[in-house]
Amino acid sequence: MIISLTLIFKKMLIMQSTLKLILNRSCKAQHCRALGQYYNHKNNDYRGQNFKNKKTPLVIGTAITSLVGYYLFINKNQRHVYAKEAKKEETNAGAYCKGLPSYSMSEVNKHTTKEDKIWVVYREGVYDITEFAEQHPGGDQILIAAGGSVEPFWLLYGIHKNENVFKILESFRIGNLKKEDQVQITDIEDPYAKDPIRHVALRPANMKPFNAEVSPALLCESFLTPNDLFYVRNHLPVPEVDPATFELEIEVEGTRKTVSFTLEELKKFPKATITATLMCAGNRRTEMTKVKAVKGLSWGPCAIGTATWSGVRLRDLLQKVGVTDDEETLKHVQFEGLDFDVTANQYGASIPLWKAVDKRGDVILAYEMNGVPLPPDHGYPLRVVVPGVAGARNVKWLGKIVVSQQESSSHWQQNDYKGFCPSIDWNNADFSTAPAIQEMPVISAICRPAEGDVVKVENGFINLKGYAWSGGGQKIIRVDVTTDGGKTWQIAKLDDQDAALPPRHWAWTLWSARIPVDPKLKEVEIWCKAVDSCYNTQPESFENIWNFRGVLSNAYHRVKVKLGQ
Amino acid sequence: MIISLTLIFKKMLIMQSTLKLILNRSCKAQHCRALGQYYNHKNNDYRGQNFKNKKTPLVIGTAITSLVGYYLFINKNQRHVYAKEAKKEETNAGAYCKGLPSYSMSEVNKHTTKEDKIWVVYREGVYDITEFAEQHPGGDQILIAAGGSVEPFWLLYGIHKNENVFKILESFRIGNLKKEDQVQITDIEDPYAKDPIRHVALRPANMKPFNAEVSPALLCESFLTPNDLFYVRNHLPVPEVDPATFELEIEVEGTRKTVSFTLEELKKFPKATITATLMCAGNRRTEMTKVKAVKGLSWGPCAIGTATWSGVRLRDLLQKVGVTDDEETLKHVQFEGLDFDVTANQYGASIPLWKAVDKRGDVILAYEMNGVPLPPDHGYPLRVVVPGVAGARNVKWLGKIVVSQQESSSHWQQNDYKGFCPSIDWNNADFSTAPAIQEMPVISAICRPAEGDVVKVENGFINLKGYAWSGGGQKIIRVDVTTDGGKTWQIAKLDDQDAALPPRHWAWTLWSARIPVDPKLKEVEIWCKAVDSCYNTQPESFENIWNFRGVLSNAYHRVKVKLGQ
Repeated sequence: MIISLTLIFKKMLIMQSTLKLILNRSCKAQHCRALGQYYNHKNNDYRGQNFKNKKTPLVIGTAITSLVGYYLFINKNQRHVYAKEAKKEETNAGAYCKGLPSYSMSEVNKHTTKEDKIWVVYREGVYDITEFAEQHPGGDQILIAAGGSVEPFWLLYGIHKNENVFKILESFRIGNLKKEDQVQITDIEDPYAKDPIRHVALRPANMKPFNAEVSPALLCESFLTPNDLFYVRNHLPVPEVDPATFELEIEVEGTRKTVSFTLEELKKFPKATITATLMCAGNRRTEMTKVKAVKGLSWGPCAIGTATWSGVRLRDLLQKVGVTDDEETLKHVQFEGLDFDVTANQYGASIPLWKAVDKRGDVILAYEMNGVPLPPDHGYPLRVVVPGVAGARNVKWLGKIVVSQQESSSHWQQNDYKGFCPSIDWNNADFSTAPAIQEMPVISAICRPAEGDVVKVENGFINLKGYAWSGGGQKIIRVDVTTDGGKTWQIAKLDDQDAALPPRHWAWTLWSARIPVDPKLKEVEIWCKAVDSCYNTQPESFENIWNFRGVLSNAYHRVKVKLGQ
Repeated sequence: MIISLTLIFKKMLIMQSTLKLILNRSCKAQHCRALGQYYNHKNNDYRGQNFKNKKTPLVIGTAITSLVGYYLFINKNQRHVYAKEAKKEETNAGAYCKGLPSYSMSEVNKHTTKEDKIWVVYREGVYDITEFAEQHPGGDQILIAAGGSVEPFWLLYGIHKNENVFKILESFRIGNLKKEDQVQITDIEDPYAKDPIRHVALRPANMKPFNAEVSPALLCESFLTPNDLFYVRNHLPVPEVDPATFELEIEVEGTRKTVSFTLEELKKFPKATITATLMCAGNRRTEMTKVKAVKGLSWGPCAIGTATWSGVRLRDLLQKVGVTDDEETLKHVQFEGLDFDVTANQYGASIPLWKAVDKRGDVILAYEMNGVPLPPDHGYPLRVVVPGVAGARNVKWLGKIVVSQQESSSHWQQNDYKGFCPSIDWNNADFSTAPAIQEMPVISAICRPAEGDVVKVENGFINLKGYAWSGGGQKIIRVDVTTDGGKTWQIAKLDDQDAALPPRHWAWTLWSARIPVDPKLKEVEIWCKAVDSCYNTQPESFENIWNFRGVLSNAYHRVKVKLGQ
């Protein structure tokens, strides 16, 4: 049986009360327009007519160093290469399994709750995932696939297509799907098919959604990270937004008004520019993983970048709709993205209201990055830049703002991007006990040399380069480096630093050091640690800050290198 | 020869151009009144008539627990006990030394600069301290005694009266003072003679000036620290200030006005109250000393306390004199205390202007502590409370405010209370390279049990109590404790916490924990670490944060205890 995408969606719509609720809630908002287009698929166009064949604005970097220039050749075939890599992930999971009972799809459909057991289908396999549901890293979202096939969702969240997930899934195998009910998905267009072309230097941590960082050596080459080399952290497909019809909606909870602004109207507000570093809360996660496995993308030390961001001050915009720094009832500003999944869930996050209205908060609704319109991967046409705060709150493709008494209810605000004690794991985590990460702690990294490099010793010295940053508007006041396990520390030179003073110092510091090494050694381990203007410093090692989500990985950065002559 | 105090001061006045400069500068300011009284000594009254026989306002605590009550018996003889202890510090330093040449005081008088060599006298000893001058922990202040006797200064700075200092001094011995020039100081009244009577539970880290803290067990008994048990960190003798004649002077640099306010006038501004923790930047220094010796008072973990502070908002007062949150030229607010040394140097410090004018800065000129007038040791009649910022900036006995382009030039702002890399010591320190400590990093401590205690194990568990705090308005979100070196961490219960939200959460958190211990063990080491709302956490150990001044001692707190049944 070949089943069309339309049928899958129809089935889904009657399948889940959860989904209905989400749709109802969503349709009240401005984004229901986009949502309508999303589902109004004709001729198998997954995105709808309005979004079809729009040209993606392509921004080719800003001022870059000669080294960066070397990498700047855009590989036109990159998307094709990625597609091939994705294919490699496929395995025999879900294949017919001899000796197990057969179930019809209508039988599977009945198992959608914990009480009735939660069943799902993958290809020919039927699985009872009741026990696993509570441990699902994506939280309750797993319930949206309950009683049906997980395949449409896995097309969206490519992270599921890996051996570990297949292994977990197969451990819950209870049967085979009857031949006549098997779905051969031939006509779902890949929701990521329209993602922009990316720079070849961006090394993907995940393909769908796209998440990538450059190499450390490349990252530390320029104080302002070229747009093309800026780390990309997408949670969903990149939406194509028509700037001509785009409107930002602002809702103020309670009796107060709801207002919309076109891009042109937003650009009439005074244009503000800030220089700010953005960093994913999962930056440097791979190092924490070495202590004990964590759930999350394998970020190296380059899920961080610095740019100038220009746009309208959120403070100005909120004042326009009557929310000032004297507001006492409402406490949070929620941001909703225009990036949706197949269940109409859009990306969302919130920040405390004080940060948005404070004259020193410097929150910008940016339409420019490093002097040019935002690239599609970075939120075109409009994103929030909340300087000093975790990347996850800097919502891209901003569609709606809600000034509220409550935090955003989104998965990413409530059940992700939070820190926990090392003794907590997925089995005993209670997300309500930890605050959402906002201001980020102090961090640093050695960018050159990289782990395993052979480093030339010149007159007994080696050269290092790196970055350091702290959230909350704090400035880096010192970076210390050592090659003898902390017996002696050398002070690094702070080469590049923004002139802004704390508590409004939003950008990273690039540093370098020339440090002595014992000429008798063949190998050394280099450590670095930074101190910020609150004299906060980094924890020494990952053992005591380990957390099951692998966020806030800010222990000393340690790089082992070989010494050459 | 018996020399009177008047003569000593007369000699000093012609001796040092440095001193003249200080006096000239000082006399321009409001405090020249106090200064005049200070030097206008008749009948050997060191402080002057106006300050004589004023009754010291004595404040007997606020609400306290039954345990605290036990300690609350005021030992009327305490001052006497202290005097005895001070006597013990005296040794044979400065005694006649056979075989060394003899010098007259007029010869000594010629040696006041590095070029001419710097000589000083202590009792019968003559010393060439040229080499030592640059390493003097008190910086340039040593030059004020150059070419004369150090004794009047050592009466003021009691810290010099210890074996180490005597040993250092004797290592620079060059001769004996001629018999006829020897000074027998009989008529200098102890500048600390009028210091208030203190609570017997305050354990002195230093007597003159008075610096003291209570025991950890007592400290964690109440969220608001009783005034009598609040740590005292004085840099100079406690001045007696007459509230009837007291005036606070505010100078705004440039062409703008200078205004004075009486206490009554200050009390007419809206009264603001904040709950804030104050902590000395040297709190927990004794632990850092174990890595390598540092210079500074031996503070345990109790140079910290929490109180409600009521007074006038500095923001309101500055607005009154024309300095608002829109000020762009002036950058700092300097505070001058009414506590002076014999050279007319008063205590001083400054904070960045933004903190003073920001609506979320909450800087208070407090005239009340825990609902009663400030006690003498805590700044009566007026002190600055800069919440979230190191104790040293919370200037007591506030006499003058200067809104300036510059930081305070005081010793304590420029050459003290700064953090350095572990590789820096007195020999290579350049104080201009480090920023003055303002906002404090996250810290915590175990208050019960204390090091060496025998702890009762109840059903395999032991009970802990402690505090945690972070500067900059950040809130403690978690405290983790371990008894197995970090293999497993337990989450402490946050018992007492102020309701204020970051970035205006100024008070500490009191916590407790009931944690399992291995019943086979006879001894365990307990560690604690805190995480604040920026997810900053403490460094693990002191080795890598060691600094020669022993400030910012916020590594994990580790307490070794014996287990009993």
